[in-house]
Amino acid sequence: MTVSPLDHPVLAALLGDEETVRQFSFEVEMAAMLAFELALAEAEAEEGVIEADVAATIAAALASFVPDLEALRRGVARDGVIVPELVRQLREAVGTPASDSLHFGATSQDVIDTALILRLVSVLQRLDDLLVEMVAKLAGLELEFGSRRLMGRTRMQAAIPITVADRIQAWREPLERHRKRLETLRPALLVVQFGGAAGTLDKLGAKAAAVRARLAARLGLGDAAQWHSQRDRLADFANLLSLITGSLGKFGQDIALMAQDGGEIALSAGGGSSAMPHKQNPVAAEVLVTLARFNATQLAGMHQALLHEQERSGAAWTLEWLLLPQMAVAAAASLRLAGELAAQIDSIGVLADR
Amino acid sequence: MTVSPLDHPVLAALLGDEETVRQFSFEVEMAAMLAFELALAEAEAEEGVIEADVAATIAAALASFVPDLEALRRGVARDGVIVPELVRQLREAVGTPASDSLHFGATSQDVIDTALILRLVSVLQRLDDLLVEMVAKLAGLELEFGSRRLMGRTRMQAAIPITVADRIQAWREPLERHRKRLETLRPALLVVQFGGAAGTLDKLGAKAAAVRARLAARLGLGDAAQWHSQRDRLADFANLLSLITGSLGKFGQDIALMAQDGGEIALSAGGGSSAMPHKQNPVAAEVLVTLARFNATQLAGMHQALLHEQERSGAAWTLEWLLLPQMAVAAAASLRLAGELAAQIDSIGVLADR
Amino acid sequence: MTVSPLDHPVLAALLGDEETVRQFSFEVEMAAMLAFELALAEAEAEEGVIEADVAATIAAALASFVPDLEALRRGVARDGVIVPELVRQLREAVGTPASDSLHFGATSQDVIDTALILRLVSVLQRLDDLLVEMVAKLAGLELEFGSRRLMGRTRMQAAIPITVADRIQAWREPLERHRKRLETLRPALLVVQFGGAAGTLDKLGAKAAAVRARLAARLGLGDAAQWHSQRDRLADFANLLSLITGSLGKFGQDIALMAQDGGEIALSAGGGSSAMPHKQNPVAAEVLVTLARFNATQLAGMHQALLHEQERSGAAWTLEWLLLPQMAVAAAASLRLAGELAAQIDSIGVLADR
Amino acid sequence: MTVSPLDHPVLAALLGDEETVRQFSFEVEMAAMLAFELALAEAEAEEGVIEADVAATIAAALASFVPDLEALRRGVARDGVIVPELVRQLREAVGTPASDSLHFGATSQDVIDTALILRLVSVLQRLDDLLVEMVAKLAGLELEFGSRRLMGRTRMQAAIPITVADRIQAWREPLERHRKRLETLRPALLVVQFGGAAGTLDKLGAKAAAVRARLAARLGLGDAAQWHSQRDRLADFANLLSLITGSLGKFGQDIALMAQDGGEIALSAGGGSSAMPHKQNPVAAEVLVTLARFNATQLAGMHQALLHEQERSGAAWTLEWLLLPQMAVAAAASLRLAGELAAQIDSIGVLADR
Repeated sequence: MTVSPLDHPVLAALLGDEETVRQFSFEVEMAAMLAFELALAEAEAEEGVIEADVAATIAAALASFVPDLEALRRGVARDGVIVPELVRQLREAVGTPASDSLHFGATSQDVIDTALILRLVSVLQRLDDLLVEMVAKLAGLELEFGSRRLMGRTRMQAAIPITVADRIQAWREPLERHRKRLETLRPALLVVQFGGAAGTLDKLGAKAAAVRARLAARLGLGDAAQWHSQRDRLADFANLLSLITGSLGKFGQDIALMAQDGGEIALSAGGGSSAMPHKQNPVAAEVLVTLARFNATQLAGMHQALLHEQERSGAAWTLEWLLLPQMAVAAAASLRLAGELAAQIDSIGVLADR
Repeated sequence: MTVSPLDHPVLAALLGDEETVRQFSFEVEMAAMLAFELALAEAEAEEGVIEADVAATIAAALASFVPDLEALRRGVARDGVIVPELVRQLREAVGTPASDSLHFGATSQDVIDTALILRLVSVLQRLDDLLVEMVAKLAGLELEFGSRRLMGRTRMQAAIPITVADRIQAWREPLERHRKRLETLRPALLVVQFGGAAGTLDKLGAKAAAVRARLAARLGLGDAAQWHSQRDRLADFANLLSLITGSLGKFGQDIALMAQDGGEIALSAGGGSSAMPHKQNPVAAEVLVTLARFNATQLAGMHQALLHEQERSGAAWTLEWLLLPQMAVAAAASLRLAGELAAQIDSIGVLADR
Repeated sequence: MTVSPLDHPVLAALLGDEETVRQFSFEVEMAAMLAFELALAEAEAEEGVIEADVAATIAAALASFVPDLEALRRGVARDGVIVPELVRQLREAVGTPASDSLHFGATSQDVIDTALILRLVSVLQRLDDLLVEMVAKLAGLELEFGSRRLMGRTRMQAAIPITVADRIQAWREPLERHRKRLETLRPALLVVQFGGAAGTLDKLGAKAAAVRARLAARLGLGDAAQWHSQRDRLADFANLLSLITGSLGKFGQDIALMAQDGGEIALSAGGGSSAMPHKQNPVAAEVLVTLARFNATQLAGMHQALLHEQERSGAAWTLEWLLLPQMAVAAAASLRLAGELAAQIDSIGVLADR
Repeated sequence: MTVSPLDHPVLAALLGDEETVRQFSFEVEMAAMLAFELALAEAEAEEGVIEADVAATIAAALASFVPDLEALRRGVARDGVIVPELVRQLREAVGTPASDSLHFGATSQDVIDTALILRLVSVLQRLDDLLVEMVAKLAGLELEFGSRRLMGRTRMQAAIPITVADRIQAWREPLERHRKRLETLRPALLVVQFGGAAGTLDKLGAKAAAVRARLAARLGLGDAAQWHSQRDRLADFANLLSLITGSLGKFGQDIALMAQDGGEIALSAGGGSSAMPHKQNPVAAEVLVTLARFNATQLAGMHQALLHEQERSGAAWTLEWLLLPQMAVAAAASLRLAGELAAQIDSIGVLADR
């Protein structure tokens, strides 16, 4: 066991999803934070809050910026967030007098939260792509094997015969609803966070709304009032991540149960055992159950983090950091594995006339 | 401590919500189950699946039915669900030959799940009414005190001044989003469950869809394909319940923190202490935090229950019974208490010129 | 679904445990609270804190006290705890001048927490009795069928043959460890809570420790420093409750899986279906899984309640009320059901020479 | 946000613990797995199960083994566990004929579980060391400031004065109990796992117990019957980890609340803000709350993993991998941060005569 198998060099091959893990790498996060600072400077220049040549100086400095990681480590240990030290380094790179115009009117949470949302654009796209693929795979299986028979099972016991199509529908229909949920959630979630010290954009005065709108547009995000202490959209997103893993966990559980006696399903591949070379383990099916129970567990924490006291809660906010990225990776990994498992189904059900 | 303070004769005055608790009483559940059986008989008569006079006989028997509770106890202990014994009692009350036509084509889960949904119609209405009231109360407070000043607080420390309106918006805006979420969820959630033994309505043949549509219409519910083993809509509803309590938990936490030194808020009432008669405890504020953490906890279980294996999982289904009703009561209680707390706010913030 | 099936007149026959539910009834809680006030008065009289005849007056009034439930309802809604109003009613019943000596030096939490612990004495005994019975039943099954063969299954697939004894040991050994855990926990958990307004027994001066020791002795509890805001023993107890249900959930899951094809286990009874009279559902086995997942869920909340701020957190304390009693009932119900399920096993495994 | 801040190159400076993270690195895990294979070969040689020179060949190969990481990645993706491919690589390194004697009689879970326990030896020692330090720091604060006054606060409101010693005791006493819990848990937890394919050590016949005892002794672990599917000791350990973070979360919460108005505590350091250079944020105090709520959340998952079906559940086992290491790191990080925070307390309480 390693700290997090989700992004481990070896175990992530089982439990991770490369593309999603990449979005939660430090490199991509750093790039997103710099993109925020750049877009902010440009937005503020457009609105006349800072000078155009100052913005150009900032842009140039950001383009070649290389962070001092050791100082960032010390900074985050002291400040609880990476931004104060990062801004200090950036301002040093920008040089006076332009340095005061960098990060002008913004606060740490603006940077961290918006940098998260910027990466969620890709994460949502990845999830949607994988959902589309998985729905198509299940539709393909239904087309090929749907009319075959299965023993319907209730309370884990044989009940009456059903068709393969009946069971596949129970796997596919929730995924189709998840796609709709994702579409509903997307415009609400993918919005800029920009509020300044206590959410009031106090330093920008009358230009606050205009700067925020330009900032959002430059980043390709929706414009929205600051949501420093309103975390319902993130909790709602976490709910969707766990709905996805939950539905795929049912799929995995069903496959693992069907694979027990082998009569109802044929899988083209399975994992081996170090003690029993003859065994074919439905590893992906089991891991789908794992990831479902993992995300169900984490979701409780994301909802605990809704109790975000006053204008900014360090405690609740930091809790999100420990939970949400792993939930997103688990959801993408689950979709990836479910797709692989669906592709391994050589046949399912028995011919009706048997 | 009693088993569940949420419906306790004494403690529910603090932690329950009378109207919502009533929906989860056995009496109202029994009435909903009988309503299902009545509507089913009538729907099947309309479609010619059973005779019209048989349906009338069933209706008459249902109207005067009094259950044998002791036998129901034995039945549920044996069968894991009340329905087999209930149907046996009902068939005895109907008498032969009509008795075979009662519950025709249905299974236990159809009765229990649809009887739940029937009651959720009222529960959703109650939640929406309370949300509307609470939003209005907060808007009223904003109108009255919005321009006053508060010390904005980040990481629990004084930051910069904000207005009362700034903070009230952080309480109100999520509630407005929850109303929209409820509207989005309503048509998806409030649908009939009707699938028969293994979800295929096998006994109704070609008339299955028509009977289901009539059944739904008679019950005032939407028509939908069976969702025996697809529990995402219930988990999604649970998420909304916890979003509601979470947002109100933040409100409660903020009030409790403001009440600490008394300078920023004046509350007209508070709870007493058995040891310190002078104290005024912001009891409702604290209980809002309690209910938020309670629902956040329960939500994990509702997502664990998404792993509903095969056509019906007794294990996962029964888990929902232990979680969802309490979550709904907690959400309604939270809204009720938040409304009471908002009404206790005599003043908030300080005059800007002070 | 009803608010809590654990103490429901009908559903509790499946999901409750009569003896444990009774400990969490309001009647038994009220009796325990009155026992606290009586023992306190007597302890204080013995130490000369109050007069002996005053204690006798208090004892007489407590003996015939009938609470005004409606006023208690109003009191708990206002104060967040039943004690201030209960003490008011009790003092009225005692009459002046003795009334001031009732509840002298105590606070609400002393009454509620100690009244809980008093009932946990019986709950722990019930759990231990059921553990002993269950271990004996499994030992009996091992004696009878232990040498038979079973197909060992890893990752849900057939692995290599094992004996029935091998599997039964995996069910029994954790229960034996749980008994030891219970023995270790018992002296730490079954202690009086007595701290007064803020935990310092400020009103009792130099006699504080002596009164507390006498109070504990009179109640049959251990003596211990106040633990107002130190909830680790309750969280540790909750952990044990969930360990018990978890181990029995594994037993239930295994039985349900074995019952699938019928070759490896014969059960003498099972639940019926309203749609399929021929089915025999291993209801108790499934409910063991339900209760395990239920308690695992609740445990997270009990650990959230460890964050008990300052000298007393209304928010964290009330959260315990919503969680712990249900966990205890679930554990007792799980042991009861496991015992019933074990008794239903007519045979297990196959003869080795088959 | 990155996948797991607990072992991130930058964020771990805040949220991790270097020594504990190292135990959960892949390098240390690989070393522990190789130590298992070496000890097994030597134990089997001592019992005459394999030849002494074969064991020497194995030892030599293990000493210079360099894994093919890319092949391990493919292996874990296929097999769900790293061991089958690792054993294949090791056997290749050992060469025929000795290769068949490597991993003889063992299975994947033996390697993974024992390699975990080997590292928990160090983790428990680290936790105990940190607990001792923290208790000493709190005792030191009590010695220095214990007689000063604090306003006791119940339900977040001022109650009556207490001493600093009163509050410090509420922080320290649970930690002392945690040390005892750790001592009780240590011999139960730090035992070898060795069961072979399905827990019966089928390949070792009459020598099974002797080999296991020698294996345990060589690894410095206790000897115990296989616990493949009995995960209560790990769940119990997880409970202790969450008790530790929970108690320190209360400490952090209390400090953050005291720091609000500054009158009752003076801290020598605090985190800065990117928007408000004047602020001193009690970052460590808040992070203690974060880590407490994080571990409380994870604990539910560890208890879900108790439902470990049959002889080995891939689903439940893999779930532990995703939870337990992070809980251990969070507990160690929490102790580290609590120690730093205690050291930052320049003064606490007010002089009694003020």
